[in-house]
Amino acid sequence: MNNERLTAFEDAILAIIMTILVLDLSKPKEVSWAGLWDLRISFFAYALSFFWIGLMWMSHHNNWRLVHIIDMKTILLTLVLLFFASLFPYTTSLVSENFNNSTAQVFYGLIIIAISLLNVALSQNLGRLNPKANFGLLYKTPNRVVFLDLGIKFIGLVLAITVYPAAMIYSIFIASVVLGFNFSKE
Amino acid sequence: MNNERLTAFEDAILAIIMTILVLDLSKPKEVSWAGLWDLRISFFAYALSFFWIGLMWMSHHNNWRLVHIIDMKTILLTLVLLFFASLFPYTTSLVSENFNNSTAQVFYGLIIIAISLLNVALSQNLGRLNPKANFGLLYKTPNRVVFLDLGIKFIGLVLAITVYPAAMIYSIFIASVVLGFNFSKE
Amino acid sequence: MNNERLTAFEDAILAIIMTILVLDLSKPKEVSWAGLWDLRISFFAYALSFFWIGLMWMSHHNNWRLVHIIDMKTILLTLVLLFFASLFPYTTSLVSENFNNSTAQVFYGLIIIAISLLNVALSQNLGRLNPKANFGLLYKTPNRVVFLDLGIKFIGLVLAITVYPAAMIYSIFIASVVLGFNFSKE
Amino acid sequence: MNNERLTAFEDAILAIIMTILVLDLSKPKEVSWAGLWDLRISFFAYALSFFWIGLMWMSHHNNWRLVHIIDMKTILLTLVLLFFASLFPYTTSLVSENFNNSTAQVFYGLIIIAISLLNVALSQNLGRLNPKANFGLLYKTPNRVVFLDLGIKFIGLVLAITVYPAAMIYSIFIASVVLGFNFSKE
Repeated sequence: MNNERLTAFEDAILAIIMTILVLDLSKPKEVSWAGLWDLRISFFAYALSFFWIGLMWMSHHNNWRLVHIIDMKTILLTLVLLFFASLFPYTTSLVSENFNNSTAQVFYGLIIIAISLLNVALSQNLGRLNPKANFGLLYKTPNRVVFLDLGIKFIGLVLAITVYPAAMIYSIFIASVVLGFNFSKE
Repeated sequence: MNNERLTAFEDAILAIIMTILVLDLSKPKEVSWAGLWDLRISFFAYALSFFWIGLMWMSHHNNWRLVHIIDMKTILLTLVLLFFASLFPYTTSLVSENFNNSTAQVFYGLIIIAISLLNVALSQNLGRLNPKANFGLLYKTPNRVVFLDLGIKFIGLVLAITVYPAAMIYSIFIASVVLGFNFSKE
Repeated sequence: MNNERLTAFEDAILAIIMTILVLDLSKPKEVSWAGLWDLRISFFAYALSFFWIGLMWMSHHNNWRLVHIIDMKTILLTLVLLFFASLFPYTTSLVSENFNNSTAQVFYGLIIIAISLLNVALSQNLGRLNPKANFGLLYKTPNRVVFLDLGIKFIGLVLAITVYPAAMIYSIFIASVVLGFNFSKE
Repeated sequence: MNNERLTAFEDAILAIIMTILVLDLSKPKEVSWAGLWDLRISFFAYALSFFWIGLMWMSHHNNWRLVHIIDMKTILLTLVLLFFASLFPYTTSLVSENFNNSTAQVFYGLIIIAISLLNVALSQNLGRLNPKANFGLLYKTPNRVVFLDLGIKFIGLVLAITVYPAAMIYSIFIASVVLGFNFSKE
């Protein structure tokens, strides 16, 4: 299978996920600014999920330019990554409506952590197949940024399980800002 | 990242938004011509949203032929633009069911104004990167048409906030006809 | 705008319409073969809508190979065609749940007749721009088949308005079989 | 029609099906790990449907590289295959909510068996048109694997009709693991 078809398929699935997120966005009980303000948590989770996938898409394709060889493992890893990504509308809606619920937050976070780890695996796989591309743990992102990103999320996870559920989504927000800031410097 | 991939991703997201708008289109209470006529406001908002995005897509791609260089800012601006666009099914449904509600109208309008301003910013960004393309405020659209378009929408916004909520959507309709007429002359 | 981008955009929208049709397919009240059999009318309308769009897609792209020049009118006609096509999930669901209702049937039929006429207009437009392509009323379909297709649908429309609502959908089914049979001979 | 356009259309439809599956995934009654555990059957059906289509996509495109000639029959077979595939969100939701119901399981299985048989037909059709591609019953998959795959599903079907409804979905799971394992050896 060629590279082009795989990335086109991935792009299509990510685009659809980002766009159907809106179908689960809660409608205000009363249509007023106060009513919309009551949904601020839903809008926050919606925006975070949208941009998180958007940033992943950006990162993938900034780096995939350097990829010329893929193998069956690349495809399988991508398929598993897309499977977890496909749950975004589900976990986003769950976390929006149960913001202070530990299970909802941890489930939302675990999906994101799984995708992050799959990205590390993909990047290792592609680095092995395309030695000239010089990929690190997460494509061309410096390894310390990858550890920082994962570290922030794991701290969020621990806090979400133990004392403060919403720590999960806030940690993902912080980690995304860190990663986004890193991309913009490229 | 290359230009081609960005526009393909944008096209996919715009196509999905335009197509899932229908999922929120109200069903008639009684299936008769009178029942459908009661939904004329919903059909109007549906058609306006569909064609507004369609016209934006047209305008983008008429102009992007001239774009050869993009940078990280182009991608980030596009991502933010797509984020606001992704809210179309939500705001269209809100405005359909609350046509005389100021909040619904203003929310619908603000999303469209935000997208219009992002298009101005994108056009400035692309003009700087591709000097030969000779872009103005909104790609190749004459600047006076851009000011007219924004002016009409701002008048609609002010009227919607103060005295007549539906002024918002009607002003967008008028501005779109003006822009569409301008395109057809190209 | 180039031809390629327009057809890719059209393909995306048609693919999404065909796929989201299923979201409105009624679930059986009781999950048994009898329960599914009660939905036979919904499945029939679903399959007809799916294949009708599928056949249109096939016909478009068999013929668009010969198209090298398009103009602004081509794009506007396509956008209007896609607008009517975007209503398919809506009208299909309406006709499934109100099979013997004249309004539902006529609305379903009018959308399809509008798309058929837009295809005639598009074909005339493309024939003028690409004289070597030798398009007739509906691309390369013989004109008598086009008249037969439209004729069958108009008879269905008249019957649906006057005496027998379901004549509309049956006439579309018959016309599609005639067209499909004609394609397979190509 | 060219090969490229057909596979792009197929890819788009499969990507959309895989992504909208999530819209029908049941939400937990109580948001807790116990509540999610109660939905394990829904998650299993969701994952199986997602990966089943994913594997089919992989198999198609590993093999379509070798395809240079297609005819009208290829397109019609693909359209019918996509029609059955488009029912996945429907049958997956049906089987999730009625796991021990024979009708739901058999309906889910029959759609998959129909797609498998259409793949055999497509592969025969493409093999005839592209003699150098050397396709067997299912593209390049060894014929004994194809018979094994179909055999397992037929046994599941018989058991589902007679004594144990869930045998259908488990047999599809087993057959997919067998096929997936076979792909990974390629």
